[in-house]
Amino acid sequence: MHILLLVAHGSRRKESNLEIEALSKKISKLKPREFDKIMPAFLEFASPSIPESIQMCSELGATQVTILPYFLSSGMHVTRDIPDEISAAMEGKLGFEIKVADYFGSRNEIAEILIKTALDIK
Amino acid sequence: MHILLLVAHGSRRKESNLEIEALSKKISKLKPREFDKIMPAFLEFASPSIPESIQMCSELGATQVTILPYFLSSGMHVTRDIPDEISAAMEGKLGFEIKVADYFGSRNEIAEILIKTALDIK
Repeated sequence: MHILLLVAHGSRRKESNLEIEALSKKISKLKPREFDKIMPAFLEFASPSIPESIQMCSELGATQVTILPYFLSSGMHVTRDIPDEISAAMEGKLGFEIKVADYFGSRNEIAEILIKTALDIK
Repeated sequence: MHILLLVAHGSRRKESNLEIEALSKKISKLKPREFDKIMPAFLEFASPSIPESIQMCSELGATQVTILPYFLSSGMHVTRDIPDEISAAMEGKLGFEIKVADYFGSRNEIAEILIKTALDIK
């Protein structure tokens, strides 16, 4: 069982966290065949946290977990905080492999989408 | 003269801010015909700030400015901080119109790109 964790920053503003949950559900609906389950996780201000999510993966019987940092640039959160949280959670030797994808902001497609966003002003 | 301001959060980590500058240049190279100039601006931790950038637009002779919030969710920065900074900068009555585009994270394309990102692990 392969679980994809969509890891976002998290906000003090509830609506913002709901957006991440909605995005996680939207990815699920696209049914990427490589992942059996897609779940959101948050670095700060919202739950589940990264350690809580990794624990949930264990309880759900995951054999493989992919962590996808939903961040725009490789700041401290991507380079230090997320790896630290994963390492701490893995110390319990959970019996599955965790892979960490590149952060979202590294994608080549973004420049074109930004132009569209700037032009789509109502 | 229509200037596009790519407004990012900004980071204490220099490399992260350089990524935003590189992205701004990348958009310029795509030569979107609606914009004569594309410049980065930062909410925190890096310069130019939003007020500094708006002042630069004025000095450059802008007649129209589009602000594009490069943020993933509609947290406090998108809903409060960026509008506040723009309002404060506009009090000087700069003689051009500012439009604010939707924040990047509102784009429909993102779910598909996230799946690709998760699958592109080397």
